[in-house]
Amino acid sequence: MRYKVAILGATGMVGQKFIQLLDNHPWFDVSAVIASERRVGKIYGEEVDWIVSRDVPKSVRDLEMLPMDPKKVDADIVFSALPSDVAREVEAKFAAEGFVVASNASAFRMEPDVPLVIPEVNPDHLGLIEVQKRNRGWDGFIVTNPNCTTIVLVITLKPLMELGLKEVNVATMQALSGAGYPGVPSLAITDNILPFIKGEEDKVESEPLKLLGRFEGSEIRFASLRVSASCHRVPVIDGHTEAVFARFDRDVSVDDVIEAFKSLKPIEGLPTSPEEVIVVREEQDRPQPRLDRDAGNGMSVVVGRVRKDGENGVKYIAMGHNTVRGAAGASILNAELMAKEKLI
Amino acid sequence: MRYKVAILGATGMVGQKFIQLLDNHPWFDVSAVIASERRVGKIYGEEVDWIVSRDVPKSVRDLEMLPMDPKKVDADIVFSALPSDVAREVEAKFAAEGFVVASNASAFRMEPDVPLVIPEVNPDHLGLIEVQKRNRGWDGFIVTNPNCTTIVLVITLKPLMELGLKEVNVATMQALSGAGYPGVPSLAITDNILPFIKGEEDKVESEPLKLLGRFEGSEIRFASLRVSASCHRVPVIDGHTEAVFARFDRDVSVDDVIEAFKSLKPIEGLPTSPEEVIVVREEQDRPQPRLDRDAGNGMSVVVGRVRKDGENGVKYIAMGHNTVRGAAGASILNAELMAKEKLI
Amino acid sequence: MRYKVAILGATGMVGQKFIQLLDNHPWFDVSAVIASERRVGKIYGEEVDWIVSRDVPKSVRDLEMLPMDPKKVDADIVFSALPSDVAREVEAKFAAEGFVVASNASAFRMEPDVPLVIPEVNPDHLGLIEVQKRNRGWDGFIVTNPNCTTIVLVITLKPLMELGLKEVNVATMQALSGAGYPGVPSLAITDNILPFIKGEEDKVESEPLKLLGRFEGSEIRFASLRVSASCHRVPVIDGHTEAVFARFDRDVSVDDVIEAFKSLKPIEGLPTSPEEVIVVREEQDRPQPRLDRDAGNGMSVVVGRVRKDGENGVKYIAMGHNTVRGAAGASILNAELMAKEKLI
Amino acid sequence: MRYKVAILGATGMVGQKFIQLLDNHPWFDVSAVIASERRVGKIYGEEVDWIVSRDVPKSVRDLEMLPMDPKKVDADIVFSALPSDVAREVEAKFAAEGFVVASNASAFRMEPDVPLVIPEVNPDHLGLIEVQKRNRGWDGFIVTNPNCTTIVLVITLKPLMELGLKEVNVATMQALSGAGYPGVPSLAITDNILPFIKGEEDKVESEPLKLLGRFEGSEIRFASLRVSASCHRVPVIDGHTEAVFARFDRDVSVDDVIEAFKSLKPIEGLPTSPEEVIVVREEQDRPQPRLDRDAGNGMSVVVGRVRKDGENGVKYIAMGHNTVRGAAGASILNAELMAKEKLI
Repeated sequence: MRYKVAILGATGMVGQKFIQLLDNHPWFDVSAVIASERRVGKIYGEEVDWIVSRDVPKSVRDLEMLPMDPKKVDADIVFSALPSDVAREVEAKFAAEGFVVASNASAFRMEPDVPLVIPEVNPDHLGLIEVQKRNRGWDGFIVTNPNCTTIVLVITLKPLMELGLKEVNVATMQALSGAGYPGVPSLAITDNILPFIKGEEDKVESEPLKLLGRFEGSEIRFASLRVSASCHRVPVIDGHTEAVFARFDRDVSVDDVIEAFKSLKPIEGLPTSPEEVIVVREEQDRPQPRLDRDAGNGMSVVVGRVRKDGENGVKYIAMGHNTVRGAAGASILNAELMAKEKLI
Repeated sequence: MRYKVAILGATGMVGQKFIQLLDNHPWFDVSAVIASERRVGKIYGEEVDWIVSRDVPKSVRDLEMLPMDPKKVDADIVFSALPSDVAREVEAKFAAEGFVVASNASAFRMEPDVPLVIPEVNPDHLGLIEVQKRNRGWDGFIVTNPNCTTIVLVITLKPLMELGLKEVNVATMQALSGAGYPGVPSLAITDNILPFIKGEEDKVESEPLKLLGRFEGSEIRFASLRVSASCHRVPVIDGHTEAVFARFDRDVSVDDVIEAFKSLKPIEGLPTSPEEVIVVREEQDRPQPRLDRDAGNGMSVVVGRVRKDGENGVKYIAMGHNTVRGAAGASILNAELMAKEKLI
Repeated sequence: MRYKVAILGATGMVGQKFIQLLDNHPWFDVSAVIASERRVGKIYGEEVDWIVSRDVPKSVRDLEMLPMDPKKVDADIVFSALPSDVAREVEAKFAAEGFVVASNASAFRMEPDVPLVIPEVNPDHLGLIEVQKRNRGWDGFIVTNPNCTTIVLVITLKPLMELGLKEVNVATMQALSGAGYPGVPSLAITDNILPFIKGEEDKVESEPLKLLGRFEGSEIRFASLRVSASCHRVPVIDGHTEAVFARFDRDVSVDDVIEAFKSLKPIEGLPTSPEEVIVVREEQDRPQPRLDRDAGNGMSVVVGRVRKDGENGVKYIAMGHNTVRGAAGASILNAELMAKEKLI
Repeated sequence: MRYKVAILGATGMVGQKFIQLLDNHPWFDVSAVIASERRVGKIYGEEVDWIVSRDVPKSVRDLEMLPMDPKKVDADIVFSALPSDVAREVEAKFAAEGFVVASNASAFRMEPDVPLVIPEVNPDHLGLIEVQKRNRGWDGFIVTNPNCTTIVLVITLKPLMELGLKEVNVATMQALSGAGYPGVPSLAITDNILPFIKGEEDKVESEPLKLLGRFEGSEIRFASLRVSASCHRVPVIDGHTEAVFARFDRDVSVDDVIEAFKSLKPIEGLPTSPEEVIVVREEQDRPQPRLDRDAGNGMSVVVGRVRKDGENGVKYIAMGHNTVRGAAGASILNAELMAKEKLI
């Protein structure tokens, strides 16, 4: 069981992360790197401003970059790290031509017939694939994963839903890599933080309602939950930290919440799946992005400081690797789930 | 009108900030620097590990450090930058001996007969001075200012009280200088944030209730308000940033809130008072600590991103200089107010 | 004695610094801000991504940006913060039309008939102005200041020439602001340094020979000195630090060198001139960029750790503010000198 | 072939690094962790302020800390991460009692009868062991590795000796971890560099002469070489970067130098030995500490920017992981060499 995969937007920060994570992947082989017009025909290893590790993986270094044209690409799965505006057109084109598109872009996330999926949270939403293909008359389809901040948050909210979660305020401290490369100028963030990330709060407030919603055969009924976000950039390379204030419709104890976190199980048999979906740290000063972002090879969400917050409330800190669990790893895990479920 | 002032705990981060801010002060002259036993008799400029500016001010450089003994100190006002455990004993000793103690320490803040004051917020709480002197039989007295995070928050909450403020969630991104010197190790905070600050959340949740409470002749009736805090350290030198989620008992508009912020007036005639107590920035990415912490010479609180947050809610970002408005400057402003009111 | 001045390249990092330093300048009034084509006609305060301080100075905020066309500009002096490739054409055009161009760009620095000047080092090189005007048939002329790293170095080398300086190795740790804005991506420099700065070593090795050379009526005879540089970028906002290894043709003592440093005198009567050209720090761990870059309002070079280095050798650390003494302040000081000498 | 090893000074930065690197080591098992008096009897995993990775390795977590008393320790090899003043007494005590002490401390490095060894540079210096045992009447012995900055430098100097190397100026940009934990305060190094590291320059100037010297049966004849160092601290977590100016007694080409670097071979059969001792990067902006410090699992030295520097000169950048190749890894490699050579 091996699949050929192509990367859309292969030279950017998330594109690089796809390539790094797919190096020596047991199921997927990168067969094509696809870039914007000006880079087509150039050699990946010579063109890319590689920033995510010491060296470009050998398997990809000598690939010639291809255009965003489905006819020119031979692959079973297309991973998309495109910016949203480009994604809207290009992903549709690939899906129409029969490709399975696993996308990290925001373009299609909130479309009613496009699955927005975290395998451990709402795998059944993949049922929308059939709806999508029927609606759009496409041979292939698009499956999306959430925004990097959303995914860390929602993985922790999922097990709280059964405890009667009603309302969430979340303040984030987001890593530099979330802004891509070159992204945030060093002069803007040295001895500083930035209290604004364009478009982020909207995503964090809307995507959870779909993710935590119920698939009802042909559509998702959104969860009844209120999420309010305040998003900030901090001088950290990787790892989004989130301070969560959660309110429930009943009294909950710290132990209930910790137990719920630990009850969220990984999907078995997926190579990228972490052993623990949520790692609960007991120390009073964890999670910390530099120390904890690589938990579960970057696929675990690490939680700490769970504490009571008035009646019916709890607060805690959640942290996850924004370009692994929050981007490239999320798409890969979705593709693995689809492969396992014979959807590819 | 000139007063001799002494600094308790003169070599630490806040002690240094007192000395920096008092250099060339129009009313106050530093006449004594007081330090722990091992430093007594040494010359301030030779002993201090000066970190807050290029050079130790000339007026203080050659002072010999004195012990924490009221008999050895000649001053009208004693500013205290002591750690809380030391403050409890030493400040009481100085107050008993007739000194006016303007303290930044937390030791006495929540004592029922000790004023916890922000001049623009609750100047009338100074009425507790008489109660305190009577209760304790002291010739002098202690007046305190709040924790650095509390003060930034409460200055913005004060004008919201009339709009029906009921509940506040606040997530903070606090500067390194708040932990003193040497404080946070560089290895702990480089490419990292710390999601915990010892004792901080308790202070931020309790002090506002006293500050926003009503002085009723002999005691403070605490405000009816719920504050929940999540406090975090970020790699910023100075300037605490706070993401505030505020809920009211009625609908409020963004314009109401901005207008309320702008309505908070400085106390006239105090040298350290800023022109604007709250500066409201219109840009979508302000306040930022590096750019805004020196607004009003560090005495203004800078607010931005005021936005609607569901029914009856508003969220915004507040930022203030934690060692100026949040510590040394706060004590000095309190002393100026007392001088103006002939309490010294 | 007031002059109207225009800023070429007003929106960049150095352009902003010109505007900041010229705010309330006693001789110079900013009358025009000149920018690239796409910004012409727009309002400076609305267009600029202001990064050097809290707010755009009021005097400039509402100016409409002008094109790089001498006919459209009314000014006595034009300060240039242009990139070198643009500077070559544009500065010549302004000089030809009769403007005095005080340029921070590298384009003309090494031209034989263009003065490359540091007032305290080689003011007599302004004698080249006449040669230049004659050679080129221009009504105006161009005067340049050195590269930011060169100027800090050469100010310390000048007084050492009389001690028999023959060879210099210098390793630099340069600030982020030297790369302009947006400049260095935060992801490239967090928890990192960059051991390369494009074009920098060439400039640091060649410019000193001209600066320390002798004006011989119609040309500069270059100094006989060998300079070798290794240039590196570090995560510091402002302030270039330089580790200098100096070799002489004779034995020199540390005291000789310190005395020489202190002997370099400021030019009297120039508003931007610092009280001390070179500040010598005695502490073993100074100069430090954050603590010392504002010495002399950023116009002093701060030196420390002068120590013997084998026979005939000395090593020391030099540090200066790269966008003040090293860029905008350098051009302004040159213009002040020219004004004083009635060359404008 | 398995050996029991003990760690002296197990809770500090280098002690932690020993434990991290020895986890799952094929030859060495950590059997004892030795700490200062106040920690004796406590459990390692509960006491240590672990900073070098996510979690304390399981194999060591539950060890009880032992005192610095050879009688209480059961081990074949003692790795020492002690501060120099403590090391002088304690290491001697362990060596006298028959232990093999592989020390990272500076206390004994320059003693005439103590080997100061880098396996790839001067393995024959282990011949001093016999001299040492004879001289001192010890049952065991001490073998040392150099200072972290020295080792990175000397690995690159070794292959240049045959090209006629005579003189080296080196300016360093050293990582925070070199100062231990808590070490450098964040307030001291944020937006800053420190141009001084206590004792460092002396070590970098003296140790290479011994390391590159010749073992002549009973003593080391020091190399004829002049090294001058200027040492600086930068805000980088791990990885010392060094700008090297090298002068030779003859003309050398860049190719000669690169070829020499590549010719330095690893010692075969040692588990910690890297595949390449010196990695030569061709890019103009490498090595960089964050990208390159883990080359060869932190045991390679990475070199770049080799360029001609006048007649008979070359300059280049060298970078190595200061707590791996520069400390714990160096001691471990020495112990591996001794094990291979049957000296243990």
